[in-house]
Amino acid sequence: MEPWQLTATAARAKLQEGRLTVEALVRSCLERIAEREPVVKAWTWLDPVQAVARAREADKADIRGVLHGLPIGVKDMIETADMPTTYNSPIYQGLRQGRDAACVGIARGEGAVILGKTDTVEFAAAGRRAMTRNPHDPARTPGGSSSGSAAAVADGMVPLAFGTQTGGSTIRPGSFCGIYAMKPTHGVVNTEGAKRYAHTLDTIGWYGRCPADLRLLAEAFRLFDLDRPLGREARQLRIALCRGPNWHLAAPEAQAALLLAGRRLEQAGAAVEELQLPQPFEGVTEAHRVVLAGEGRGAFLQEYLADYARLHADFRDRVENFAGITGAQQAAAYDLAAECRKLFDALFPRFDAVLTPAAPGEAPLGRQDTGNPVFNSMWTLLHVPCLGIPCSKGPNGMPVGVQIVGPRFGDAALLDVAALVAPVIDPGLAG
Amino acid sequence: MEPWQLTATAARAKLQEGRLTVEALVRSCLERIAEREPVVKAWTWLDPVQAVARAREADKADIRGVLHGLPIGVKDMIETADMPTTYNSPIYQGLRQGRDAACVGIARGEGAVILGKTDTVEFAAAGRRAMTRNPHDPARTPGGSSSGSAAAVADGMVPLAFGTQTGGSTIRPGSFCGIYAMKPTHGVVNTEGAKRYAHTLDTIGWYGRCPADLRLLAEAFRLFDLDRPLGREARQLRIALCRGPNWHLAAPEAQAALLLAGRRLEQAGAAVEELQLPQPFEGVTEAHRVVLAGEGRGAFLQEYLADYARLHADFRDRVENFAGITGAQQAAAYDLAAECRKLFDALFPRFDAVLTPAAPGEAPLGRQDTGNPVFNSMWTLLHVPCLGIPCSKGPNGMPVGVQIVGPRFGDAALLDVAALVAPVIDPGLAG
Repeated sequence: MEPWQLTATAARAKLQEGRLTVEALVRSCLERIAEREPVVKAWTWLDPVQAVARAREADKADIRGVLHGLPIGVKDMIETADMPTTYNSPIYQGLRQGRDAACVGIARGEGAVILGKTDTVEFAAAGRRAMTRNPHDPARTPGGSSSGSAAAVADGMVPLAFGTQTGGSTIRPGSFCGIYAMKPTHGVVNTEGAKRYAHTLDTIGWYGRCPADLRLLAEAFRLFDLDRPLGREARQLRIALCRGPNWHLAAPEAQAALLLAGRRLEQAGAAVEELQLPQPFEGVTEAHRVVLAGEGRGAFLQEYLADYARLHADFRDRVENFAGITGAQQAAAYDLAAECRKLFDALFPRFDAVLTPAAPGEAPLGRQDTGNPVFNSMWTLLHVPCLGIPCSKGPNGMPVGVQIVGPRFGDAALLDVAALVAPVIDPGLAG
Repeated sequence: MEPWQLTATAARAKLQEGRLTVEALVRSCLERIAEREPVVKAWTWLDPVQAVARAREADKADIRGVLHGLPIGVKDMIETADMPTTYNSPIYQGLRQGRDAACVGIARGEGAVILGKTDTVEFAAAGRRAMTRNPHDPARTPGGSSSGSAAAVADGMVPLAFGTQTGGSTIRPGSFCGIYAMKPTHGVVNTEGAKRYAHTLDTIGWYGRCPADLRLLAEAFRLFDLDRPLGREARQLRIALCRGPNWHLAAPEAQAALLLAGRRLEQAGAAVEELQLPQPFEGVTEAHRVVLAGEGRGAFLQEYLADYARLHADFRDRVENFAGITGAQQAAAYDLAAECRKLFDALFPRFDAVLTPAAPGEAPLGRQDTGNPVFNSMWTLLHVPCLGIPCSKGPNGMPVGVQIVGPRFGDAALLDVAALVAPVIDPGLAG
């Protein structure tokens, strides 16, 4: 097995035991990238010389953080002091920020090797798409907007990568690419240095190849209650199977995946119960649209004034409030979200997690359609932690995932649930 | 009258009429700064040569934005592409960011001349204080954390300046320095590029010397409904006089100022009615403390890991969750805030504004105690717009202000109310 094939957790164990050096791990990833990048096109910036130099530094380090020596890809929405950041916008080509985004600084502080920047949809929102292809079928999108990060992890180029999620930009590409994905509780990971899109929604997310990989980053970010294990077995879990208000938008393979995941859990002894969300949740998808449009007015005003001609028309429309959002609508959307957050949290501890679709189906063909975020946007607005798990294949052999969702600040318990349910739901789970 | 003595609105009129050049205005401000800075110490960075060059550029401009030619001071919590940013932290001395914070970029986009950076409390939070003195009495604080911005505007060094408010960092210094201050609805002004402290609370605010000055920046930021005038006279206003849950912490001069402002409004014919906030509001000050501590865990983790020794102990405590905040407490604080936001908004349109203390009294002696934010933190958490108005003098001849508060997204109406009530409340109103 080559080092690039290791999960982050497995690589970490070998590094700790002295059976692998950071340099060897990074060189192996770089070799994988050299081989596959012409097809996958995951990276916007990668300097192998710098990466190897960082790896050698890491090998010399006395203090070893929780991410010691692990290579991480960074979505090019997230700023880096030693690499350019473009947000895939023509306006920001060549931008060099003076300090790292918080998530990058924290990952470095815990010993990670930032390998490079991964391609994204313009401002993680609209306009230009990433050049990235789905590693399972280069004719298809890896999803967006965290296109490069999802594809890079799926293709073995890097064991971990950062994405962002404002609608469905972390969990959906994870499903399309057949990997594990985490969107933590809103606000627990500092989004500073990730370009603003909608402050109520913007969340740093990450990818790995098993639940334990996702947990490493949760530890780096010191999420609540990681020291309080759930202490259950899979057969003791109570899972709410939630089709959700947009079930009719799920393709047959997405519907089948959710029901299959539920059956597998039942077969493993878990209690699986269908959950119908109460009436107010019917409005949350629309509230997400209002918040996105309302907050987008201010998010791109700087670029609108500074460089109108190179700002994609989609963003100009937002600044000009083409959607016609009023302050009253925006306040009502916030209030509905607040009401539903309370209602959702109250489902726990009756359930250990809510199981629900992660994406509408297989990854679409082409680069333009990065997929509908409708199975994610509600959860993003509710601020709850979401964890994407591969489950099955669609009619074209493409991966189809599901996600489990917990209450706000229940990230640690959700990771524990994921560790129990992933081997049941995902037949291809590594290590 | 020297140009530095003009309000922003008056200077703007002269610039429009061709009776003043941007260069003459900027030079006049620089002369005032040269004279007064040894005492006031408002600025952390100021390059007169660059400022004059920018002014000359502005004089050549064909397109004239709403802030054309107006000099603005920027709190050193807010990033600038052409000036260093330190956040008053020893960790970030010499930091140069590659792009402007959103509010700075938008101000430039509307034609403002960014004059320089103003001193702040470390990370606008705790630790090191600004060196700035109160222009009314150099033995006293101008308040914090927007110390330099408030003092610079109060002292005639610059007609407008940006601050930030997470607790009471914009409105309180405005009261201590006897100037006008605005904290808009949370989220309507993009905080990107202002160092994160607590994302639910962080708000860009600004200072001016009359309500019309404050409105210029509201126009630059395209706040909702600026094209829908209130269409009332002072005698038609219905004002809720609200002592609030922390009235016992107001010094006699702060209590007197509020009651005086109420009487002056009544004498002007307005309907003034005492408002007792309902029971849930009793918990909002404590909820603010929980949110601040809970969100502070992640806000300073980057610095904690990168430069522990130079991070003030106060921030280390936050990262280590010295306050012992749990996720459940944090969620409960968010939920209480959401409930009270709805309750507060429902007071309108029964009232046109809520009138309430802006600060606990006169500015304290010395540099260390920048004053208690207890009359501000509730409103910050409620996300509502607040506008500070000078009112009277305390026993030591220092300014004492009040503030008016509106519903979320009611910024434009609040500015209209301010234009009506300021001449009634503030005997020293310029222009």
